[in-house]
Amino acid sequence: MITKKQIDDTLENYGKEVRIATLCSHSALQIFHGAKQEGLKTIGITTPRSKPVYDAFPLSKPEDYIMINEYKDVLNKEIQEQLIEKNAVVVPHGSFVEYVGAKNIENKFKVPLLGNRKVLEWESDREKEREWLKKAGCKVPRRFKKPSEIDRPCLIKFPGAKGGKGFFVAINEDEFNEKIGSHKDYIIQEFVIGARYYFHFFYTPLFHEGYQAGEGRLEMLGMDRRIESNIDELHRFGFTRKELDTAKIRRSFVVTGNLPMTLRESLLPEVLERGKEVIETSRKLFSPGMLGPFCLETIITPDLDIYVFEISARIVAGTNLYPSGSQYSQYIFNKSMSTGRRIAHEIRHATRTEQLEKVTF
Amino acid sequence: MITKKQIDDTLENYGKEVRIATLCSHSALQIFHGAKQEGLKTIGITTPRSKPVYDAFPLSKPEDYIMINEYKDVLNKEIQEQLIEKNAVVVPHGSFVEYVGAKNIENKFKVPLLGNRKVLEWESDREKEREWLKKAGCKVPRRFKKPSEIDRPCLIKFPGAKGGKGFFVAINEDEFNEKIGSHKDYIIQEFVIGARYYFHFFYTPLFHEGYQAGEGRLEMLGMDRRIESNIDELHRFGFTRKELDTAKIRRSFVVTGNLPMTLRESLLPEVLERGKEVIETSRKLFSPGMLGPFCLETIITPDLDIYVFEISARIVAGTNLYPSGSQYSQYIFNKSMSTGRRIAHEIRHATRTEQLEKVTF
Amino acid sequence: MITKKQIDDTLENYGKEVRIATLCSHSALQIFHGAKQEGLKTIGITTPRSKPVYDAFPLSKPEDYIMINEYKDVLNKEIQEQLIEKNAVVVPHGSFVEYVGAKNIENKFKVPLLGNRKVLEWESDREKEREWLKKAGCKVPRRFKKPSEIDRPCLIKFPGAKGGKGFFVAINEDEFNEKIGSHKDYIIQEFVIGARYYFHFFYTPLFHEGYQAGEGRLEMLGMDRRIESNIDELHRFGFTRKELDTAKIRRSFVVTGNLPMTLRESLLPEVLERGKEVIETSRKLFSPGMLGPFCLETIITPDLDIYVFEISARIVAGTNLYPSGSQYSQYIFNKSMSTGRRIAHEIRHATRTEQLEKVTF
Repeated sequence: MITKKQIDDTLENYGKEVRIATLCSHSALQIFHGAKQEGLKTIGITTPRSKPVYDAFPLSKPEDYIMINEYKDVLNKEIQEQLIEKNAVVVPHGSFVEYVGAKNIENKFKVPLLGNRKVLEWESDREKEREWLKKAGCKVPRRFKKPSEIDRPCLIKFPGAKGGKGFFVAINEDEFNEKIGSHKDYIIQEFVIGARYYFHFFYTPLFHEGYQAGEGRLEMLGMDRRIESNIDELHRFGFTRKELDTAKIRRSFVVTGNLPMTLRESLLPEVLERGKEVIETSRKLFSPGMLGPFCLETIITPDLDIYVFEISARIVAGTNLYPSGSQYSQYIFNKSMSTGRRIAHEIRHATRTEQLEKVTF
Repeated sequence: MITKKQIDDTLENYGKEVRIATLCSHSALQIFHGAKQEGLKTIGITTPRSKPVYDAFPLSKPEDYIMINEYKDVLNKEIQEQLIEKNAVVVPHGSFVEYVGAKNIENKFKVPLLGNRKVLEWESDREKEREWLKKAGCKVPRRFKKPSEIDRPCLIKFPGAKGGKGFFVAINEDEFNEKIGSHKDYIIQEFVIGARYYFHFFYTPLFHEGYQAGEGRLEMLGMDRRIESNIDELHRFGFTRKELDTAKIRRSFVVTGNLPMTLRESLLPEVLERGKEVIETSRKLFSPGMLGPFCLETIITPDLDIYVFEISARIVAGTNLYPSGSQYSQYIFNKSMSTGRRIAHEIRHATRTEQLEKVTF
Repeated sequence: MITKKQIDDTLENYGKEVRIATLCSHSALQIFHGAKQEGLKTIGITTPRSKPVYDAFPLSKPEDYIMINEYKDVLNKEIQEQLIEKNAVVVPHGSFVEYVGAKNIENKFKVPLLGNRKVLEWESDREKEREWLKKAGCKVPRRFKKPSEIDRPCLIKFPGAKGGKGFFVAINEDEFNEKIGSHKDYIIQEFVIGARYYFHFFYTPLFHEGYQAGEGRLEMLGMDRRIESNIDELHRFGFTRKELDTAKIRRSFVVTGNLPMTLRESLLPEVLERGKEVIETSRKLFSPGMLGPFCLETIITPDLDIYVFEISARIVAGTNLYPSGSQYSQYIFNKSMSTGRRIAHEIRHATRTEQLEKVTF
């Protein structure tokens, strides 16, 4: 694993002309846009296929491009050297983590990242993530040990389950037995039924007024609901599960975009508390804990219990809904403040006050 | 019942330094934010648990807090005296009405309210509300006298039905008989199937140019759809009603938040007319009628009929979607105009022109 | 068919004081609002019933009204003469095309239109539209020749099918046979299951920097999802198709409004490419091809395939969501830019640079 010392040594040579770099995908339009708003230069690491998209949006077009053939090439020595030479701080996003790989980032990617790279280990391991959330007082979906315990809708997940594949749904033991086939390795997890809310937070150790958390403050920057294909529209014809099975239509949860939304205000105390506890727990589990943008992915039941089924320890694509600020960021900042801009603001402030090592690793 | 005279006497001593007060819940962030935009001071009546939320959003943080243990304490003599001493006009919202109670507000809460408190009687009684809406020319869901008349999806509601409890659904007499048990007291009401739209209006008697209604004008400030748990996501696995019954999963309509939306423009003439008629009918039923923000809660059928199933005679939480104005308020005002800000604007204008008694009671 | 020469002759007399006119419906509030922002005068062609709506929104209120009894009256000689006398460029929208009729517009409406009126022929004929889309490399829903081929959910459409009527759904041959009755004339088309996205584009031949297409550039101005009654909410009670049939509740797709949304950023390359190809194909099919605002109406499957099921060759009502610009237009323009404003901007720029004939017909 790359050490904090290594990154800090790199940062030492950066001076005050730091640039923001990221892969041209996921939330890069927003990240570049925000950086420009804060007066920082940007670098887009892109494939030939994606580049025209970033040219199409002049206010989000990076000043420099680094061309690669596939996203994994960002690990190449020359690419890393170019980035460091240009004083780049890389903003990790979902595509970055997915295409490059958590282990590769931890061990091979020597460019300073916004946030704490130690979080990758805790975020990418389902058991560790669950431990973290439970320690932070979050309700999490129940796990069942045996099929005979199934007394509610459950997801049965095989190792590596993702989006549309590697899982099935059962509402009782019979359905489990009918569908399990010869699989031996699975998790039976409650499928909590309610309304999905994805909460966008930003934790800063550099500012203190507001909602106290850790050694700094927690900001609620917005929320969204993911649009999942095909599960969100499968109901439109009322086909029975049997009919869908016959037509070989599988339920899947592939994210295609995001919807904006606001939350019942009386639930904000609980949501902010969970955000705070997640930060404070992370400080105990992997000092200095999680930094910068993160997202709690939740389901709110009819009893108004908030179940956290996942955490993303970085900017999420749902923030793309709010390039000029969300319903919530408007109550915090006098100017339009997207998560992308908030990131640039943090990096700029850290640079100016010589605290960049406090918000990167 | 507190008389208009009593409130007017109180207002007489307020002078021009009126403050906006409300309970810290529901739409208070927006109300405080709007008041600050209009240059009015604010008072947050809060429990210890909610206070940190309002500290977390500095641009929505009230200048003063009044601490209470539970929302009902707002009725306490000392709290009321404090509010009056500080020249408070209280903005009633859904949580205020729910926690304090319509009867208590009418009879015991002596602080001036934005709007006409007589509306509470008409809004909180289902039969009176229905009478009001029908007189205003609104289509309302049909009522059936006997189970044998059920020829379409119906809600069967018991007294006090709310959110997830006290009702069931039946599509014919058989289903009714199967589910009614020993209940004797129920309403059978058509469950209109269509698309839900919640229209946010503001009626002012102080301004006249625009869409004429009553002695003033009607403004369309926006619209939303409520997000209800679990009914909005229950369909995602295609479980049959029988399977859900076995798993003891009840359908419920608990509001957890709101989605923004716009309306097919050719339906606006009808929507504005219903808003206008609702105002003008209210002026006949309880002079001077409804004032300030209100919401018509509707379902639009495939034939483009608009059924009004409820009216909220105060700010609704759906307006939280638009702290800098909605798609519609942008066509009315040159500046960002939330419903919260519109309220403050009305109070400020009324104060300056010595007409505060025209918009409060 | 009215010739380009006729329109150009008319434009010759317009000089630089062009006005924007449209029917008071669909997206007229936005079109007028945008015109005013760009400093252009506007004309609202309205029925008595709709006029008060446009008065209700002062920043969208046209400077002049032309009163008609029904929208088709816009074809009357006197109305056309009035429009031409006032130097009107008419912005066609969905209601305009629907109420006046594509053939009538092509052959009888002599007022210059924004865009190319030849597109009406290609847009309003399902077979031509399909040919256009396929030539542009768009995936389109499959067609089946015989009921025995049905192996997935299909829409069976009769001539003139629209919204709630003239179609049914079948998932296999049995269901087809059960429902077809005595109909002989039908199309069997795959019902692609996924997430719906309606992409709002603007193609300009007058500007060149950005995303190159045709002889100009393509702008992505936003996206939405249509809200359809009753299909979007029919699922809420889990009635079986049999129960709904008994209660005589038909599934229908009548558009009542729109929801805002953003797209997974990694799908933008494909979406922009399809937009570009649609423009370039149109230039070959009916020179100079499609101009100005258009919309690709798509379904994104779990495999992230983008099926285009329709094209609208004009402003769509989904753009009403973004009177001050969308998540995407913010990355292109330094000022708030709705599609309505973009139209006015194009007309103003064309007028000033004497290229109005390049963007109208």
